[in-house]
Amino acid sequence: MDVNQDRLFHHLQELAQIGMTDNGIYCMALSKEENEAHALAAQYMEQAGMTTRVDAAGNLVGRYEGSKPDAPVVMTGSHLDTVYGGGAFDGRLGVMAGIEAVHTMKEKGIVPVHPIEVIAYRDEEGCRFVGSYSGAGHLTGGYNKGIMEHADKDGKTVRECLKECGIDPDHVDDARLPEGYAKAHLELHIEQGAVLESKGLQVGVVTGICCQIRGFVTIKGTASHAGTTPMDLRKDALTAASACILEIEDEAKKWPQAVATVGQITAIPGGVNVVPGEVRFSIDMRNQKAALRDAMFDKCVERMKAVCAARGLEFSIEVGMKDAEGVPAADHIQDIIAESCKEAGYPEFRMPSGAGHDSSTFGSFCPMGMIFIRSKDGLSHNKDEYSSPEDCAAGAEVLYRSMLKLACQD
Amino acid sequence: MDVNQDRLFHHLQELAQIGMTDNGIYCMALSKEENEAHALAAQYMEQAGMTTRVDAAGNLVGRYEGSKPDAPVVMTGSHLDTVYGGGAFDGRLGVMAGIEAVHTMKEKGIVPVHPIEVIAYRDEEGCRFVGSYSGAGHLTGGYNKGIMEHADKDGKTVRECLKECGIDPDHVDDARLPEGYAKAHLELHIEQGAVLESKGLQVGVVTGICCQIRGFVTIKGTASHAGTTPMDLRKDALTAASACILEIEDEAKKWPQAVATVGQITAIPGGVNVVPGEVRFSIDMRNQKAALRDAMFDKCVERMKAVCAARGLEFSIEVGMKDAEGVPAADHIQDIIAESCKEAGYPEFRMPSGAGHDSSTFGSFCPMGMIFIRSKDGLSHNKDEYSSPEDCAAGAEVLYRSMLKLACQD
Repeated sequence: MDVNQDRLFHHLQELAQIGMTDNGIYCMALSKEENEAHALAAQYMEQAGMTTRVDAAGNLVGRYEGSKPDAPVVMTGSHLDTVYGGGAFDGRLGVMAGIEAVHTMKEKGIVPVHPIEVIAYRDEEGCRFVGSYSGAGHLTGGYNKGIMEHADKDGKTVRECLKECGIDPDHVDDARLPEGYAKAHLELHIEQGAVLESKGLQVGVVTGICCQIRGFVTIKGTASHAGTTPMDLRKDALTAASACILEIEDEAKKWPQAVATVGQITAIPGGVNVVPGEVRFSIDMRNQKAALRDAMFDKCVERMKAVCAARGLEFSIEVGMKDAEGVPAADHIQDIIAESCKEAGYPEFRMPSGAGHDSSTFGSFCPMGMIFIRSKDGLSHNKDEYSSPEDCAAGAEVLYRSMLKLACQD
Repeated sequence: MDVNQDRLFHHLQELAQIGMTDNGIYCMALSKEENEAHALAAQYMEQAGMTTRVDAAGNLVGRYEGSKPDAPVVMTGSHLDTVYGGGAFDGRLGVMAGIEAVHTMKEKGIVPVHPIEVIAYRDEEGCRFVGSYSGAGHLTGGYNKGIMEHADKDGKTVRECLKECGIDPDHVDDARLPEGYAKAHLELHIEQGAVLESKGLQVGVVTGICCQIRGFVTIKGTASHAGTTPMDLRKDALTAASACILEIEDEAKKWPQAVATVGQITAIPGGVNVVPGEVRFSIDMRNQKAALRDAMFDKCVERMKAVCAARGLEFSIEVGMKDAEGVPAADHIQDIIAESCKEAGYPEFRMPSGAGHDSSTFGSFCPMGMIFIRSKDGLSHNKDEYSSPEDCAAGAEVLYRSMLKLACQD
């Protein structure tokens, strides 16, 4: 293995001290802790032989110059912010592994043809304010200006927080990269699921990032007395909702690589001794291709409508969020990553990403690709999130080899 | 028809003014409003030719003397308290119809052999404090002394409220009736369900009061990311709970006159984009016979365990409340009520009571019987609770005729 496993894991552990609590890491977007994490990452970048700068949106950029400084840049990056009580690997691994890859090149005296940039993006999680990938979105134009006045739960707006981080909120657009700036964007990330673990694999080649649709279903029946309403006179919204939830589960199993989830449910009025008159539940459906996701969604709606019609209940659905399209990884980037896996001794395994990432914003900007490594028990957004030093290094090794292939060839 | 429909309905309407709001009637147990309602009922009793007294537990008793004053009493009664925002018929109809029956006897110059007592019981609903049928329970020994120190939501205890109503909390036991005191206890009540309405009937003969079992089911799976956990790697507690709820519904339909309800459900952690790791839901199962209820409960538990085992999830159940037995209406009282129905021109229709009533406390004290009348849309515990003047009078007529049969024969 060319990358330094101990150095990489040590960096992850040092970084984890910032904002560490008994309930996980609190390194919120645009906070003092995120600033500290960025400052520490800048040190690591400089130790790795990079020059550093902070762009107009507050993203930290480490540059490792190529022999052709004007050639399109090979970019790699991820984020250092966490969810409330997050883990030490989500996002961080991608930044630290990018730095480790460059550090390895420096130690080997490798000078790439294309410049390399390792970026720590701001505010990927989107859990302090509204909307994910805000930092990365500034580079590619995916940023929604409307969120500038959005406040966190303490009433502090994005605008105020940007200022506190030394970022001029009126000039964040200057971070926008020109067309043709990048040759490719790579990102190493923990899987945050249990697919690799269940297959006994360390590394996966991401085929693309799924597109989501989210919304709420409302089923209306008639609330009535649990004791005095015979079974055959009920218009029970909860038994109907239960049947709908099972239809969704059954339908989703029929679509390869699709997922559908009901995570939230409310029965109204909610009395132990009252037949529920109304039930509201969330839906979250994902697939790599919007057309497949929409076809599955339509089929689920059709099946739920049939359930409610048969039971004499009202069905309605309200769509809240709908990605226009999934973000496919470029075929040639997938192939480069797959070849790097094989060289480094890891079986080639391709899989979609069900979660969104900073890379989501690069889909239409430049060819993008992602590498996943195994997450213990599939856990993430959790203080017990863990990936072993060996698995982290395996991912970094594949990233390193992929970056070399991209940066050292014209 | 012998009873006076207009007088009866007028009394119900006058009574409804006490505690009336835009959101229904607030005539809570042991409140100023309940006291007012009792005072008004006492006036009606006196107009009907009864003498009145308040027993040691605060229940209002109107007595219409028989030719044999020491003969066992024919009792009829119900309650005047409401739930928060209740209707004008629940409980009240039973008291007003008892008074109307006696008023009719007085007008006709009928002197019964057995004394008749019409009682307005205190605190039937059990929603201000804990436990239902407290007032009636004092008469028959079913009263739980432990609730004396129980406080309402404003921190006022039962003891304090009794004192404010002029009742000595240390002597409520003096209300206990001696064995053999009553020949029978009758109660007219609104159905609070939609069975009579669905059959186009005005009046029903109650066969008994169901016994209940209530509890909570907990299903434990594994919370995971909705995007990164493929369908075949999920331990989704909500899809399992949905399957369990449908098993309960299906099982309950197999048992004549049984009901089973899931009224409350919580999915944890409850994120729209998180596969639920735990679900908790309530169960409420009822049947007239405890053995049948228990057999249905056991079968439901068996079926839910099978669902969870097949899905690899943990199942547990906690029983909170379990009536020892249902309260059957005495056969000869049912027959008397059925005969009265036929005489008055209403088809005989027998049905169980899924809800509990003041009569629940009389099951082991004396032969008991109940009459139901039609509830519009099956609604109760609701400001829109309604029974027509004709239906109220139909019930009162059947009550009057049943009381005559019981009170005028040795």
